Amino acid sequence: MTDHDIDYRLSDDDENVHVGVWDNALDPALSVESGAVVEFDCRGAPNGTFDEDSTAADLEDMSFEGHPLTGPVFVDGAEPGDVLEIELLGFEHEGFGVTYFYPREEEKGLVPEEFDEPGVHIWDLDGDIGHFVDGIEVPLDPFPGIAGVAPAEAGEHSTTPPRRVGGNLDIKHLTAGSTLYLPVEVPGALFSIGDCHAAQGDGEVCITGIEAPMSVTARLSVRPEMEIEHPQFETAGPFSLSGVDEPAYGTTGVAPEMREAAKTAIRQMIDHLHAERGLSRTDAYLLCSVAVDLKINQAVNEPNWTVSAYLPERLFE
Amino acid sequence: MTDHDIDYRLSDDDENVHVGVWDNALDPALSVESGAVVEFDCRGAPNGTFDEDSTAADLEDMSFEGHPLTGPVFVDGAEPGDVLEIELLGFEHEGFGVTYFYPREEEKGLVPEEFDEPGVHIWDLDGDIGHFVDGIEVPLDPFPGIAGVAPAEAGEHSTTPPRRVGGNLDIKHLTAGSTLYLPVEVPGALFSIGDCHAAQGDGEVCITGIEAPMSVTARLSVRPEMEIEHPQFETAGPFSLSGVDEPAYGTTGVAPEMREAAKTAIRQMIDHLHAERGLSRTDAYLLCSVAVDLKINQAVNEPNWTVSAYLPERLFE
Repeated sequence: MTDHDIDYRLSDDDENVHVGVWDNALDPALSVESGAVVEFDCRGAPNGTFDEDSTAADLEDMSFEGHPLTGPVFVDGAEPGDVLEIELLGFEHEGFGVTYFYPREEEKGLVPEEFDEPGVHIWDLDGDIGHFVDGIEVPLDPFPGIAGVAPAEAGEHSTTPPRRVGGNLDIKHLTAGSTLYLPVEVPGALFSIGDCHAAQGDGEVCITGIEAPMSVTARLSVRPEMEIEHPQFETAGPFSLSGVDEPAYGTTGVAPEMREAAKTAIRQMIDHLHAERGLSRTDAYLLCSVAVDLKINQAVNEPNWTVSAYLPERLFE
Repeated sequence: MTDHDIDYRLSDDDENVHVGVWDNALDPALSVESGAVVEFDCRGAPNGTFDEDSTAADLEDMSFEGHPLTGPVFVDGAEPGDVLEIELLGFEHEGFGVTYFYPREEEKGLVPEEFDEPGVHIWDLDGDIGHFVDGIEVPLDPFPGIAGVAPAEAGEHSTTPPRRVGGNLDIKHLTAGSTLYLPVEVPGALFSIGDCHAAQGDGEVCITGIEAPMSVTARLSVRPEMEIEHPQFETAGPFSLSGVDEPAYGTTGVAPEMREAAKTAIRQMIDHLHAERGLSRTDAYLLCSVAVDLKINQAVNEPNWTVSAYLPERLFE
């Protein structure tokens, strides 16, 4: 629970959840006035596939039909061309999370060619800490992987790719206290949220963060005076695990395509975690996805760009 | 000056500087034993084109022949397959720096199409602070834009693109106290350094940081037991301007190609700095290049990736 006055609560019952699609023809689950505070119960992205006893075998059995999102919420007065302001006030997990990746044949994630078999880690989330293997503790900073409004274009649109109206942005800095701004394309904005992550590295390289059912409290306000073409936001981080500058190990990729440079950086980081820290390559890839950050060092030295991956050394202290 | 014992000094006189090319046939400017500490005097990237009184007109007169680099240094015992460890011990600027970008016709930088005219800012560097317009003070954290060893491939290679052997990496986190590891391709490694930046944002979007003549002190050591295919490094940041989590304004790009997503993020940040902070669009682009960071939020939600630009709000406090 948060200490904010909650005006509305939206459970994650079926009537308040749409799975796998954005569609501006969906009936609103709720209508609110601008400035209302809503508590959203959000299912995890796997929509109930995993529990505390799950293994990689459960991943093979999962048929992912897309992200379950709570909403849509119709915000009175929001019109195309306006901006919807989403103040993220608080998050509460349920003590459970999962990180997983698919085998190479699925061709998902940043370096699927490196792994013939899938990988899964079930997380015990203990307050602000998630427990990984070998006593490694990952600090938690929850955020919504998906927050978006309905696109103007009619029909069903997959929840997987983000768009200018938001969606699956996976911006790890949208933590409690942050504010997200989204361009409105349809009357009422039709805001939905979900796919909460208890932690994630910049890049979300294996394709999941710590996927966790969570309740999210947010204030939704119409900002007709603002003009933006794409998402914008305010945040105070976290920019490092501890909140202060701390030692990191970096691996660098150099390539004429940034995603290729990122792949090189992550391949090296997996090798580093395996050789120097004794993790299995499967655990190394999972840890990269929840705690390693990808930064664009330079985007201008033609024809090769530089992307580096940053591992916080304090994970091993 | 640093408080390390310096074994060798290499001035930036012509006989110790090679301009614009990597070439493993260059005669070493110096030969040292593994573990030696060398102080390198490094010219700024513009190689003397600018001084305190320069304007954009001087940029039009400049014929950039490539980066002037100090070296190469032959490190005894380094052999192909080894790793050269470069401990960056200290930097000293001379109080002067320049940031500039070219007009659109040059097609250089991340968003050249936005600017018909070039832009230049001459910096007064005052200890740990650089003075921008409107009283804005940019904290300085010097690093070498270029640090590299000679490629095995014979002939001359441009200093502009980085390669697996390093070069124009522009990793802003290679600050004093950091260590860079580079794969050696030729006997003696043939290490050169230069293109120092007093500050730079992740991305170096306008094509320059604060380009500044500087002396760099570094310890060069052969690490025959290490095996790396690409650059790696250790750093303690800075990961924010103040060294602790602090408010940032973010602008987000969503696109199927990461550099396009980065362009969208930076275009919005230029608009934001102009509309909300009153900077000219020219000054906004220059400030993005020295103080705004590009992060890869996600690289896995096909077919659209997310890249965001982060502006530290404390620049305006």
